[in-house]
Parts: sequence; C-alpha cells; structure tokens
Amino acid sequence: MLQDLCVVDLASAVKVNGFVCKAKANATDFTTVALKLPGNTNNKFRALVTPANVMQVPGLNTLGVSMARIDYAPGGLNPPHTHPRATEMIFVLEGQLDVGFITTANVLIATTIKKGEVFVFPRGLLHFQMNNGNSPAAVIAGFNSQFPGTQQAAAALFNATPPVPDDVLAKAFQIGVVDVQKIKMNLK
Amino acid sequence: MLQDLCVVDLASAVKVNGFVCKAKANATDFTTVALKLPGNTNNKFRALVTPANVMQVPGLNTLGVSMARIDYAPGGLNPPHTHPRATEMIFVLEGQLDVGFITTANVLIATTIKKGEVFVFPRGLLHFQMNNGNSPAAVIAGFNSQFPGTQQAAAALFNATPPVPDDVLAKAFQIGVVDVQKIKMNLK
Amino acid sequence: MLQDLCVVDLASAVKVNGFVCKAKANATDFTTVALKLPGNTNNKFRALVTPANVMQVPGLNTLGVSMARIDYAPGGLNPPHTHPRATEMIFVLEGQLDVGFITTANVLIATTIKKGEVFVFPRGLLHFQMNNGNSPAAVIAGFNSQFPGTQQAAAALFNATPPVPDDVLAKAFQIGVVDVQKIKMNLK
Amino acid sequence: MLQDLCVVDLASAVKVNGFVCKAKANATDFTTVALKLPGNTNNKFRALVTPANVMQVPGLNTLGVSMARIDYAPGGLNPPHTHPRATEMIFVLEGQLDVGFITTANVLIATTIKKGEVFVFPRGLLHFQMNNGNSPAAVIAGFNSQFPGTQQAAAALFNATPPVPDDVLAKAFQIGVVDVQKIKMNLK
Amino acid sequence: MLQDLCVVDLASAVKVNGFVCKAKANATDFTTVALKLPGNTNNKFRALVTPANVMQVPGLNTLGVSMARIDYAPGGLNPPHTHPRATEMIFVLEGQLDVGFITTANVLIATTIKKGEVFVFPRGLLHFQMNNGNSPAAVIAGFNSQFPGTQQAAAALFNATPPVPDDVLAKAFQIGVVDVQKIKMNLK
Amino acid sequence: MLQDLCVVDLASAVKVNGFVCKAKANATDFTTVALKLPGNTNNKFRALVTPANVMQVPGLNTLGVSMARIDYAPGGLNPPHTHPRATEMIFVLEGQLDVGFITTANVLIATTIKKGEVFVFPRGLLHFQMNNGNSPAAVIAGFNSQFPGTQQAAAALFNATPPVPDDVLAKAFQIGVVDVQKIKMNLK
Repeated sequence: MLQDLCVVDLASAVKVNGFVCKAKANATDFTTVALKLPGNTNNKFRALVTPANVMQVPGLNTLGVSMARIDYAPGGLNPPHTHPRATEMIFVLEGQLDVGFITTANVLIATTIKKGEVFVFPRGLLHFQMNNGNSPAAVIAGFNSQFPGTQQAAAALFNATPPVPDDVLAKAFQIGVVDVQKIKMNLK
Repeated sequence: MLQDLCVVDLASAVKVNGFVCKAKANATDFTTVALKLPGNTNNKFRALVTPANVMQVPGLNTLGVSMARIDYAPGGLNPPHTHPRATEMIFVLEGQLDVGFITTANVLIATTIKKGEVFVFPRGLLHFQMNNGNSPAAVIAGFNSQFPGTQQAAAALFNATPPVPDDVLAKAFQIGVVDVQKIKMNLK
Repeated sequence: MLQDLCVVDLASAVKVNGFVCKAKANATDFTTVALKLPGNTNNKFRALVTPANVMQVPGLNTLGVSMARIDYAPGGLNPPHTHPRATEMIFVLEGQLDVGFITTANVLIATTIKKGEVFVFPRGLLHFQMNNGNSPAAVIAGFNSQFPGTQQAAAALFNATPPVPDDVLAKAFQIGVVDVQKIKMNLK
Repeated sequence: MLQDLCVVDLASAVKVNGFVCKAKANATDFTTVALKLPGNTNNKFRALVTPANVMQVPGLNTLGVSMARIDYAPGGLNPPHTHPRATEMIFVLEGQLDVGFITTANVLIATTIKKGEVFVFPRGLLHFQMNNGNSPAAVIAGFNSQFPGTQQAAAALFNATPPVPDDVLAKAFQIGVVDVQKIKMNLK
Repeated sequence: MLQDLCVVDLASAVKVNGFVCKAKANATDFTTVALKLPGNTNNKFRALVTPANVMQVPGLNTLGVSMARIDYAPGGLNPPHTHPRATEMIFVLEGQLDVGFITTANVLIATTIKKGEVFVFPRGLLHFQMNNGNSPAAVIAGFNSQFPGTQQAAAALFNATPPVPDDVLAKAFQIGVVDVQKIKMNLK
Repeated sequence: MLQDLCVVDLASAVKVNGFVCKAKANATDFTTVALKLPGNTNNKFRALVTPANVMQVPGLNTLGVSMARIDYAPGGLNPPHTHPRATEMIFVLEGQLDVGFITTANVLIATTIKKGEVFVFPRGLLHFQMNNGNSPAAVIAGFNSQFPGTQQAAAALFNATPPVPDDVLAKAFQIGVVDVQKIKMNLK
C-alpha cells in the first residue's frame, strides 16, 4: 500500500502485479451483492464457493483482504484445496461442518464446528470442510489477500489442461493407469 | 511465517513481536465460541465489538488474519475508529448499516449496506458503522492481521490515561476548554 | 524494491500502486528545496507541515522513506493525527515541544523534547506536537513510507466532503448536534 | 531481517517464528555437506529430496533462502507437491526431467529440461519432476524461504495422521471408499 | 508489527530477530539526547556519524525507523558505505555537502546540497557525503529500519577481523600486495 | 504476489516496480539455457558470473527468486561485491573455493568449500569467492530476488560513470590521488 486506495481500472489494458488503478473511487467500488444469496449446491460436490475478492470488489486492490461465502447441502464437501496466497478464517453462518487442515508434517488438525464458531486454515496448507449434518450449512470466509487463489488438489491433478500425464499420477498415488483414467473421467 | 504454525504459548514469560510458540498444536487452538452469541449492546453506543483475534484464538499467531462480530441495537454506532495494523472487510449478518470511511484527503466514502452485503475499510483510515434501522444489526468482520488494534478517535483523545491536555484538544477541535471537559466527562 | 530505482514518470497516465517509473534518473530527482525555509504558521493551528515525500521528490518512489519539516509558532499545535502508512521519528531543530502518542489501549505516552532531541510516533497511532514555549519551534520528521498519508482526527471527522453525518459525530463524542455543527463551522 | 545475522541457537527452549539466535556466528553455521552425495533413490518413488534449509544450515535463520538437491533414478518421480512458503527454481545437474506446475486456473505449464537448464515453480502451486530418461538425474533447487515446507498432495491426503476421513477423499476424487482405502494402503 | 509497541527488554538473555520486549513502555523509551551535540570530527575522516537507532532508543524495536546525525569538519568525508537494511534520506542542518550514490550499473548520481536541502541514498547502494566547504557541516538522516547497519567499503575490505586475504584485495583492485598492505596499515 | 503469475511483457513501454505482465504464460517463459555452458573466464578477474534472473527468465517477475552460475579459472576471483536486494546461497558444482562475507561489525566469516558444499552470503553484505585450486571451479547460486543487483565495490568506486571524485577515494582509502588514478586506470 503506497497510497490510501488503488481501485481497479477495468478499462486499462496494462497488466501489473495486482491491477492498474482508476482516478476516482466510489462507495460502489467497495461493496457487492455477490454473497447475498446461498450459492447453488446442485453440483458434483454439493457445495459452492462464491467469492468476493478483487474481481468482484474492485476497491480491494492493494488492500490485502477478501471474503467468500461457501454453501453446503447435506453431505456437501468443499474438497481438499490450498490458497497459495492467503490464510483463511471461517465463521459458520448456519449448520455444522467437519473441518480440517493438514500440516507439512502430514498431521491432520480437524474438528467439528457449529453455527457461530470459527476455524483457521493456514496459508498454503491443504484443507477441507464437509457438511455431515442433515440440513444445509454455510460459512463466511475471510482471507488476507485480495485474490487468494484456490487450487483443488483433485481437480488440479486430474482435470488440468493440458492433462498431467497418467504415469505421473499413477506413480504419485501408487495406482494403475486405468485407475487414473477413471478419476480423470469422473472429475471432468 | 517461517513455519506452518506458531501457536501462542500462554505459559511463556518471554515477550516478542507477536508471541512465543508452544511445541504442539491442537484443533482447539484454532477455534472459539466467542462470536456465537450477539454481544450485549446495552452501553453508551448501543453497539459492541466482540473479537476473535490471537488473544482468543492462539493458533492465529503469525498467520495474519482475525475476525470479529459487531452487534448494533437500533440506533447503535460503532464510533469512528482506525485499525493501525489491518484492513477490514465486513459482511452483514442481519439488519442494515450506514457505513463509511474517510480518506487522508478528507473524502468520505459512504453508503448503506444490507443483510448479505459487504464493505471495506482500508488499513489505518477512520471509519464507522451505524444502525439506522429499526431492528438489531450484526456483521462479521475479517482483518488481515492477527491483532488489528482499534483506536476510537473520541475515546483515545478524550478518555486517555493520563489525559491528553485540555488545550491540545481545545485547539484541535477549535472549542473551549469547558467544551473539552464536558466531552471528557461524557466519554468516561 | 525490484530494481535500484523507479523514479516517478510524471508524464504517464497509467496509475499503479505507487507510480510508474521513467527511464532515466537524475540527481535532481532525489532532492528538493521545499524544506529550506520555515513554513508560514499564520493559520488556525499556528503550525505548518511541509512535506518532502514522493510528490516533491520523485526519486523516492519504491524507496520507502520520506521527510517533512514542521514549524510551530509559540502556542502552535500540530493537531492529533495518524499516518496510516508510516512510523514517524522527529528531531527538534529549534525550540521545544510537548509531544505524545496514544496507544490502542488509550494510554498516552508523552513528554517534552528540546532542541536536538528526538521522539517516535508508531505507525497508525494518534499523536500530536505542541509548542508550549515562547519562541518558534521546528522539527525534521523521518518516515518509513514514500507517502505516509496524514489524517487529522478533527478535520477528517468534522470537515470531510461529503460531511460525516451529525448524528454519527454527536453519538461518538456524546455531545449535541448543535455542538457538532459548531465544531464543523469552526474547522471549515 | 533486523540485524545482519541470527544464527539458530540450538540450545534454546524458547520457540518463536523462526528461531532464537545464538550470540556468535561461525563459518560452519553457513555450510553443510548434506548435498554432497546423491540421495538414495531406492524407495517407492525412486527419487529423494535432500534439504539444506535452516534445519541443516543454522545460519540461514532470518535470511530468506535455502537449497535442496533432488536425485531421481530412471523413471523416478518427485510427486506433485507444494511449498507453502517458497517459490522454487531448479538447475539440472545431470540427466533430463519432465517438469510442470499447475496454476489455480488448472492450467498445466510443463516442459522437458536437460542438464544445465532451469525451471521455476511458483509459491504454493502444485508441481512435479519426473525422470523419463534412461540414466539418473539430479537437480539443485533454490528457494526464497529458510524453511519452504513441502506438502505432497497424495501423502498429505491419503497418509496423514490421524487419517483424512475416507468419505472426504471418496467425494473429492469421485471414487469409492474401497478405492480410497487401496490408495491409503499403497502410500503407507 | 504485530502489536502497538515492543520496547527492547535490556534485561533479557533471549536473542531474537530484533529484540525481546519488556512489559511496559515509558516516554523515555522513545527519546534520546544522543544527537543533541555535534559529534567530534577529530578523526581520520574528519567526520562522525552519531546514531539514534534501536540501540539508543529502545522503543524503536519493530517500528521500522531510526535517525542519525552526521557532522563534518571542512574537508570531512563520510566515506563510501552501504546500509544493507535501509534507504537513507538526509536533511542538511548546516553547511554544504557533495553527495552521491552509485547504482548497480556503476552510474554515479551526485550533486551538491546546501542547508535545508535533502538527498536520498537507496537501500544497499554505495554512497558518500563530503564537506567541500570552509565551515562545518551537519545533517540529520532518516532511515527505514530500526537498525540500518553500516558497511564502509574501505574499512570492511581492508580492516576486517580476521583480515581479508591480501591476494583477494590485490586482484579486486588490480594493485600489488604491497599496495594492499599500505592501505591496510593506513586504515587501522 | 497478487496473482499466480505475471510474466514480463517485453513489448510494453510502461515501466513499473518490476515489470508489466503479458496476458498468457508459456513454459518457455520459465526456463533458459543461459547457464548450460561454463562462462568464459578469459578476463581480468579470471571469473565470470552468468545470470538467470528476470531479464533472462521472464516468468520470474513477482516470484522472488533467481539463479546464476559462476565460473572461475584457477586463481579466478569473483571480487568483493554486494547484492542490495538478495541473500545468496551457493552450491559448488566443481572445484573448490575460498569464500567469505564481512559483517557490518567488520568481522570476516570465511572458509573453504568443495564440490557439493554450500555457503551463504547475507543480503547487502560484502562477499567474495576465489578459486585457490589448480583446476576450474563453478557454482550455482540461488537468490531471494527476481533481480538481486550486483555492486562490485572496486568497480563501483573506481570505475563509475561519471567518476567518483579522486579526493573522495583518496580520503576513503587513505591513499594519494596518484594511487587512486592508478587503480582507476587498472579497473577500466
């Protein structure tokens, strides 16, 4: 931060680390309705992440924070993923969640949190949330990055473009190439 | 961050920038029930900030984030204040709020946000939220610091220990010493 | 800092965090005569801050420092303010000053410093200097930011554009709306 | 870095972010023979990472760099992993490697590099190296962290202690619980 | 900065990056009289640097700034040196100085500055000041580090303990070993 | 790092801290053959540094690392220099080297390292490597900066453009102006 504000200039063709700024800031640059409604969880994982980062809230540029809401149908999973640029802290809006992160020593730190409780996922470590309850769950997440980035382990490895070679995945997971191709198909 | 985790060692007498760490981390170090219930707004400002920072969640040490919930009775005000170490982003849990921050050019950037909407308060700039509705309001705030610090302008100036001299405040606000003493009395 | 120098390119229309750089640096980019003469203290506060930051010294871009001189007539006050992006250290050129800062625990740390002495104001905390002597005073201030920003609490709250609503200020300072309007008038 | 050096004090019981420092630095604090010999690749992945970070080179504390050598038998794989605290750059000492990283948009950026060539793996993104040649390969890696941390995706997910629940993994990879248990067994 | 203040605890035996903090801060922790009087320039270089960094002002710990005054007799030189941890900005208290820094492209950026003028020396680059006037000169320097560190090129190379080998210096400066030994003798 | 990648856009005329980014990244942006062959040591110092930083590897922009190889003929010297923006760690590819750095307290920390061993040179401190063996030597260096910058003390002082004044150097090294001119001539 080298000045108060640097609101994204959507009209600029110049690309920099973060974004080029426009001359004038308005209150609308600092808000969004994106998180207002529960996300549609009608998908493979029965969960949906809805971001409110610098792409939705242009005033966040250079300010080092963002938010997201995550909705989970019963049984819904936000599958194991990392944020390369942010620690995440979640607050449960409703329902209850099994949550956990894994350290670089392969230690799982996990618990169950309920409405009104919080949990923390350190920057760059694999973590997940799963709704093991019978009713929908939702959280608000806060991040210390304007654009945390998300890398789902399964999707990144088995659904990249171009694909990660089968033999790399077969060796990494100690499975057969046929097993790899099955996972790739399922995650499409 | 020079390792995955550095959970606060509450037993240590050694004080450092942040906190000394204990040897082992548990899931309980990363959660709190502090934000579960609405704060008691039966006070002068009819609003209450309940923190979930490194003092409540020892696992946050070195991780660069924290949260808070703020509750507002109708007419309640979280009075103008700064966070010297964090940008803040809020999400409205219920009710509606008049929110604003003031830039170093003395420009007020303000709007009204409703349930499910967000707003951003850049690091170090004066900001406030006021519940101008008829029902209680509440927000979850995310910060990019494990311990953002809060400095309410009125309380810091008129209710410090030892007190800021009357003549400093009289000149700063261009009022009389009697006016200063009245504000000091009211803010006790 | 990703290279030695990034001197502000005043001709560029592209706005980034900090400033776009020009191709060639000259010695004149790193100096200014702005601080040479005492500032004119013939104003409401009988004090004047004269900056030598990246706006006056284009070579400071990306370098993380700046300076200012502050002049005070007898009785002059640099009213309570914060720098959202810098810690400040002052050296008294002449005269003597009552100085202080207020922590987020509302503790005032204050003393009197004389010619040749120094004092420190931590980043983001309210602080002030007042000349309680009979002769003019002056300081040189060093900052750890190319553009520290200054937010005077009274001016930001009572003289913003558009104005902070009267009821926010009345509640914050626990005074009447008429008192608020009087301060607003006086600080215009 | 707040002073020139802060060599790890192995005798101290105080744990901080990084390490407590000892009073005197010697040349031996800044070197190691750990990387001298090829690592033993007689393991499941036919590859071995040998670190030279702050645990092996105590002088690295606070200095923000470290190295490692990685050896690969023919067909050897350094399986997909992240470094939560560092970007990595590798230089091929001998042999040739298929290398790649995956962005948060699930784009694979991959190529083959030979002796004397380099490649870069951005902080926090999944990446791998595989020796598809007929002779052993080896690289020297440089990191911008004294202790980058390594999280192998397969091992973290399928071989954590306590284990990540089977149903989390089954849903994440869209496979059956029996498949999950097979991978867990294979990766023990 | 993870809290408002972290004043050096001089009684602690624990050494960390920076310093361990004491429990309570006083105004005296933030000031010094060290810079009050001109330094004694009766030495080889006819110039003296008097620091006011964290060693003299314990309150500076974690705050990222410090100051120094430099006095120069006529003809006095603050010989070419670097600050590995800080950019420096100077303000001329009296007299006039020839000042310059050298970029990594070996470009000298130099000028003459007079009383009340400023100049900037970017972090880590060689720079010097020389009093080519007939009267004493003095500056106040501001740094963006609590402890900038100073490495005089000539002293570091020719007066280190143990000494830098003669042949290293002979080759570096393309002179004879006898010339090296003469400089070593002169700089003792 | 505010996004995964920001590969240098070589076609852009806009200059910023670091570089403007292009829209699309390719694997070729993250590699180079620059370090493949030994550098030509047929020069004054009988040593050559070949960089692989952001100028050669455009994908390094914003990623905070780079590498170099250094080749030394027998007797070859990489003369005393600093990197203003990086700590350096070297790994000996072949041969053996006398290496050392000098602290700001003028303490030389030096040793001899052989093939497969490493050494560390803290950011901003003078350091050197010399091949005192009978056969060529080479190292791979890792840096925690995309563009570390290099300032050779002798060349910066005695071969700058425009030149550092003779009397500055004569006083700094306590030698005569004729000696200064001789070194200047030799280092051309």
